[in-house]
Amino acid sequence: MHDLIIVGGGAAALAATSYALGKQLDVLVIYEQLGGKTGQHFTLQSESDHLVSNILVNLAFPSEQLVGEAQFAGEETVHLFERQIKARSGVAMRDRVLNVARRDDAFQIETERHGYQHSTALLIATGVAPRTLDVRGAREFLGLGLSYSATTYARLLNGKTVAVIGSNDRTLQGVAELARTVAQVYLIWIDPEPNTSSLMDLLRRTPTVEVIEQHQVLEVRGTSAVEQVLIERDGQQRALDVDAAFVEVGLKPMSSIVHDLVKMTADGFIEVNERNETSLPGLFAAGDVTTAFGEQVLIAIGEGARAAHSAYRHILEKLLARTYAGLD
Amino acid sequence: MHDLIIVGGGAAALAATSYALGKQLDVLVIYEQLGGKTGQHFTLQSESDHLVSNILVNLAFPSEQLVGEAQFAGEETVHLFERQIKARSGVAMRDRVLNVARRDDAFQIETERHGYQHSTALLIATGVAPRTLDVRGAREFLGLGLSYSATTYARLLNGKTVAVIGSNDRTLQGVAELARTVAQVYLIWIDPEPNTSSLMDLLRRTPTVEVIEQHQVLEVRGTSAVEQVLIERDGQQRALDVDAAFVEVGLKPMSSIVHDLVKMTADGFIEVNERNETSLPGLFAAGDVTTAFGEQVLIAIGEGARAAHSAYRHILEKLLARTYAGLD
Repeated sequence: MHDLIIVGGGAAALAATSYALGKQLDVLVIYEQLGGKTGQHFTLQSESDHLVSNILVNLAFPSEQLVGEAQFAGEETVHLFERQIKARSGVAMRDRVLNVARRDDAFQIETERHGYQHSTALLIATGVAPRTLDVRGAREFLGLGLSYSATTYARLLNGKTVAVIGSNDRTLQGVAELARTVAQVYLIWIDPEPNTSSLMDLLRRTPTVEVIEQHQVLEVRGTSAVEQVLIERDGQQRALDVDAAFVEVGLKPMSSIVHDLVKMTADGFIEVNERNETSLPGLFAAGDVTTAFGEQVLIAIGEGARAAHSAYRHILEKLLARTYAGLD
Repeated sequence: MHDLIIVGGGAAALAATSYALGKQLDVLVIYEQLGGKTGQHFTLQSESDHLVSNILVNLAFPSEQLVGEAQFAGEETVHLFERQIKARSGVAMRDRVLNVARRDDAFQIETERHGYQHSTALLIATGVAPRTLDVRGAREFLGLGLSYSATTYARLLNGKTVAVIGSNDRTLQGVAELARTVAQVYLIWIDPEPNTSSLMDLLRRTPTVEVIEQHQVLEVRGTSAVEQVLIERDGQQRALDVDAAFVEVGLKPMSSIVHDLVKMTADGFIEVNERNETSLPGLFAAGDVTTAFGEQVLIAIGEGARAAHSAYRHILEKLLARTYAGLD
């Protein structure tokens, strides 16, 4: 039996694994994809002459100028975690978790290709998937001027024209951030209900922002990257010329494997307290899959480390009880 | 006026500064000492033949084997933040903050040598100082077998004999961690009140642990590093032979500069919510000076980034209001 099993391959999961290795725990991390959101990159149409080479260069050497200091530092740290984990044999397992159950004061994790794995404590850091926009071009241009995170690449967009399509608080935050530095941002509010927050009021008065409501998005267009967003209202079409388009229609937590074990919000985010404990003792959670605030790589690293720190306390008592006191 | 002033030089403060640079904010970080706890190192008597060279090597190249994967990754990340900050002129200011006041919807920070500085938002990440043990030898052997953090150097102590002097939950956690791997740990409980927690019960049954209560610590002794802890009860002295001694008698938050501005615990820790907001709008706090859980470098990095993320939202609304809407 392992001391700790961690499910996930993003920043929170890898930080937790690094913490567990530092504490000399028997840890297993089960992941489908390493690196999480830190692997994503982004290229604009205006750079299309060098499109292929840009993507390759970006993936190999993420630039501090491109993504900003904190994002760069976070990605570097995640790469360091990866190196630490790969240096230990038997720690990382590429597989899919099918089911999680509680058995005799331990966790039983069913995997697709490695059967059942068991642990004293379990840490879920499976992240989120963005809810996608189901229109022509949205899938084709993903990473080519279209992205699901307006704030990550805001630095690329100084002086450019951008559309942000969305229906929630993150949409408004993204527009507020872009409004400082872009030439023009179209805020395409796709919720039929108008937003009446003070931030929306402020954005309506901001000259670089045009708020577009009661429209449908028909298509994202371009040649090698996004060039236009086509919208419609009452049969009237309008083509917005843009350098980039962001979709902020919500995030879907990847929490189904523990849906019957822990308390979640109505949207499926795992509820955690300030120690990253869930409602089930021995089960911890970290990162975007939880109710903790902030979808930034450095924040996810901290949450992963804290969840592992709490799991360690739990494991330590169990280990001492089993080893020395004949208790459990 | 700066967008954001950050007070502190440890992991949380530097992570916050990196985040603010990434968001192209006008940020100023005022620090007394860079690096915080990550600069501390530790040497044992058994290595005393190579004492000086060990210390130098450790400071220059902190070893992953010595401090563990997560601590190493945290220190590397903090060094990267330092490089990012030093690459920008005017961002870092070495000075002491004397007073903080709220003036006309902004913060006025009085420094010892650079007069008054002003900002839209303020982030306090001033950390803690360990409460010290006031006995002979305690100051002399600091870092030479004596330390104020049992858990950071637990990996060094496999198979060794250790004393942990303390009076709180961290004391017990430190002993529980050491008990797995050391030959012997003396838990010297200096609170006159006995501890009745389940963890203390468990430690009493653990063969590698001796719980010593109702004793006074007289002296920490050694030649070039700690070799003995001298204790006394009812005039009877006892000398414990040890390879290392840890003092866990509590932490003192460095929060006095904002004591009249924000809500604090009775002990002086700044109360923060899950967004690192304090009770005063525009004032944020992160790291060990706050009520957030976990004194690990990776956790402090996450807390610093989250506090800056929240501060950024606050600043963004103020900037847009001032620039575009004639509001404030």
